[in-house]
Amino acid sequence: MGKKDKQFVSEITPMEVDFPQWYTDVIRKTDLVDYSPVKGFMVIKPYGYAIWENIQQHLDRRFKETGHKNCYFPLLIPESLLKKEAEHVEGFAPEVAWVTHGGEEKLAERLCVRPTSETIICEMYSKWLKSYRDLPFLYNQWCSVVRWEKSTRPFLRTSEFLWQEGHTLHETYDEAQDETIQMLNIYREMAEEVLAIPVVIGQKSEKEKFAGAHATYTMEALMHDGKALQAGTSHNLAQHFTTAFEITFLDRDGELKHPYHTSWGVSTRLIGGVIMAHGDNRGLVLPPKIAPTQVAIVPIASHKGGVMEKAMELYSKLKESFRVELDDRENYSPGWKFNEWEMKGVPLRIEIGPKDIENNQVMLFRRDTLEKEAVSLESIHEAVGQQLEDIQNNLLLKAMKMRDEKTYYVKSFDELKEIMEKRPGFVKAMWCEERSCEDNIKAETGVTVRCIPFQQENLGDSCPFCGKPAKTMAYFAKAY
Amino acid sequence: MGKKDKQFVSEITPMEVDFPQWYTDVIRKTDLVDYSPVKGFMVIKPYGYAIWENIQQHLDRRFKETGHKNCYFPLLIPESLLKKEAEHVEGFAPEVAWVTHGGEEKLAERLCVRPTSETIICEMYSKWLKSYRDLPFLYNQWCSVVRWEKSTRPFLRTSEFLWQEGHTLHETYDEAQDETIQMLNIYREMAEEVLAIPVVIGQKSEKEKFAGAHATYTMEALMHDGKALQAGTSHNLAQHFTTAFEITFLDRDGELKHPYHTSWGVSTRLIGGVIMAHGDNRGLVLPPKIAPTQVAIVPIASHKGGVMEKAMELYSKLKESFRVELDDRENYSPGWKFNEWEMKGVPLRIEIGPKDIENNQVMLFRRDTLEKEAVSLESIHEAVGQQLEDIQNNLLLKAMKMRDEKTYYVKSFDELKEIMEKRPGFVKAMWCEERSCEDNIKAETGVTVRCIPFQQENLGDSCPFCGKPAKTMAYFAKAY
Repeated sequence: MGKKDKQFVSEITPMEVDFPQWYTDVIRKTDLVDYSPVKGFMVIKPYGYAIWENIQQHLDRRFKETGHKNCYFPLLIPESLLKKEAEHVEGFAPEVAWVTHGGEEKLAERLCVRPTSETIICEMYSKWLKSYRDLPFLYNQWCSVVRWEKSTRPFLRTSEFLWQEGHTLHETYDEAQDETIQMLNIYREMAEEVLAIPVVIGQKSEKEKFAGAHATYTMEALMHDGKALQAGTSHNLAQHFTTAFEITFLDRDGELKHPYHTSWGVSTRLIGGVIMAHGDNRGLVLPPKIAPTQVAIVPIASHKGGVMEKAMELYSKLKESFRVELDDRENYSPGWKFNEWEMKGVPLRIEIGPKDIENNQVMLFRRDTLEKEAVSLESIHEAVGQQLEDIQNNLLLKAMKMRDEKTYYVKSFDELKEIMEKRPGFVKAMWCEERSCEDNIKAETGVTVRCIPFQQENLGDSCPFCGKPAKTMAYFAKAY
Repeated sequence: MGKKDKQFVSEITPMEVDFPQWYTDVIRKTDLVDYSPVKGFMVIKPYGYAIWENIQQHLDRRFKETGHKNCYFPLLIPESLLKKEAEHVEGFAPEVAWVTHGGEEKLAERLCVRPTSETIICEMYSKWLKSYRDLPFLYNQWCSVVRWEKSTRPFLRTSEFLWQEGHTLHETYDEAQDETIQMLNIYREMAEEVLAIPVVIGQKSEKEKFAGAHATYTMEALMHDGKALQAGTSHNLAQHFTTAFEITFLDRDGELKHPYHTSWGVSTRLIGGVIMAHGDNRGLVLPPKIAPTQVAIVPIASHKGGVMEKAMELYSKLKESFRVELDDRENYSPGWKFNEWEMKGVPLRIEIGPKDIENNQVMLFRRDTLEKEAVSLESIHEAVGQQLEDIQNNLLLKAMKMRDEKTYYVKSFDELKEIMEKRPGFVKAMWCEERSCEDNIKAETGVTVRCIPFQQENLGDSCPFCGKPAKTMAYFAKAY
């Protein structure tokens, strides 16, 4: 590694030194996003957007396979609609952007830029639904939403973000509950199989649930710094909104009833999760399934006979099956290029120089293990396919290992405090489920209940934080 | 046709009786859109949105093939940025929605909901661009925009619409001009090959060009009622915005220069064009390439042995290659279903009943010609593929014929007036290119200059409207 290269790498603050700064360095230096002139709003640059497109593609296919259709509801919602569901308006009104003027005219009623679309969608559903024969309604939209945040971080918490929001109506409570859990499972499958991020799934506490929900389910991921990331939520809204919006249908028994309702969403926040679950001090490490570039080909001594020709031949061959870039820039050294592709998290790098050509081979570098091996030109196509699969699997295993190492059991409040101070992570503990206890934990430590996991363990009979009888086992953590 | 069926069809007002009402009836009865509680804002329902997804898919592929990348810029633009380019703010300020409050707080500076994104994108480009080596910038975004319209019609003119906006920077004027024309040609190709709508391409007059543009190019389509639809525009913005936003780069010669700039967009308005170019008194007629459902299978006497089994077998076979629906609803008669699928513009319908099964055949109905023929079960897959191709081609030919029949030459102002009164359409005429003449034509007849086509004809030496020397041949029409 040459002098220039070292300097290049050292531009990223090591995560052990300052994790938030590491995060900021990585996202800026890898061209994922930029800050916009409006505080809290970000520009998603092509490299970041391409990751989102790959996530979208997977999810959109799964949504459609499970019978959902896409549609589009208006950006602006009248204040009166936002106010119809009491808990909902209380939760969202403090953080919405208000449109007060259209052109030169002051509006008779303020409109909010959608923070989420339950209200406008329920207003439309109340017009559309007539009979049980129309059910279920299985609709989704891809859009941006605005929530006026005081303190923001790119991808993790921004005043505008991209997401999808599914909104469904069902004849019975059980059907709505099944849908809620089905969509949570689609999210989990996406997180594990596509993002290579293991997640804990379970139910939110009453305090942490969505404003207006009957029950909120979540998937929680653990980041390198031991903080949790809420990576996707699915809400059983029961009849809270359908009653408030007077949505009714004529049921099989001839009676007029309110349908049962769900909503579920994931957002560009997932990209923040990918960065913080897989990244290292060289920069991004991207799972092959979402990497905008899966293979970067870097020719060495490319002015020498045959190198560029061979590199181009390889590029043409590989790009039929993989997302490949041929880095033929003339004003950068191979070493500089190596570092750049590593920093950008590209899963595989192929180096090809005059000596490789003599030996009828190339060098294949893996971003996740930093290992390099010679591969014959005949078997390179197969090797790339195999290695990309290996990397995808290895990243999930590594992330599971990291999470397991940072997951603890505690039997006392002091233990919790000690862990959070010295080696933060997920903490499993029994819990009384009382709001006052939850508030107290948060006030003393900043820790929140992440979820009551579906997979329960019996760790004792009493709540280690307040001494009352325990009702459940929960995951606790500091969170983004 | 039974009584119930006749009633069904007659719910659409004939286009000869009242074209605007025909349009409104079609879009409502076919479940493409609905009106939202905010005036001028529409909900795009799944059937309408699926058409947009098919258009998006084609364009997105073509954009990427020509080197463009997607990204996402913020929804909200500070007022000060909107004001930087003088002509631009004059054009757009009267029709933007203003955000004045974020949560409980009044904002220090008003933010407009993007009506188009030149200003925010140029602000970012000014940070990103350093050297000629960075050029060209070839970026696009898919999003919604808001323009406060006084009078709206679903798809054609709404206060919010979905679109894509490409924004590129180039080293030279010629490169920017080439890009502008390349993107116009991609739009034309999409209109003709995907939407089956023939278009006239050319340049907008000074009066009609985009606010802030050096030159605007357009594609103009003719609707059934003889009115023109501006279906897509591509702007050469030269250095207007790059100067106002102080975007500079270090050129090959070591000098700091302003790059050349383009932008181009098409929107959900295209769906309005499809409706009005192909629809008839039975409802929609959709080109197979964008039809959400290409083939509807309707079983007849489905309670009889073997019918449903055969229909399901056919469905499984066809859905591997086509977008197929099996209409197995029990509470509707086959005749009712026939009408519904016709109204929804589905290109092909397959009818299958006990007699057909005896004869080892199905009936294949074409929406565009209303012709029905028997097809053997062995050759149905091939026949469907062939017929869909035929329909796609036939729709373009029909639309070309319609347009040609409604395209006229005029040599006097009186002729123009007579045509617009009796048989409106495209009018080709020589023109002086003077603003006062253009204003006068519009004031007297409501007709505007649609474009100065690339394909010129010499129809004389003087302007038939004002008598001054003619500079060019232009297309005139009333327009949406």
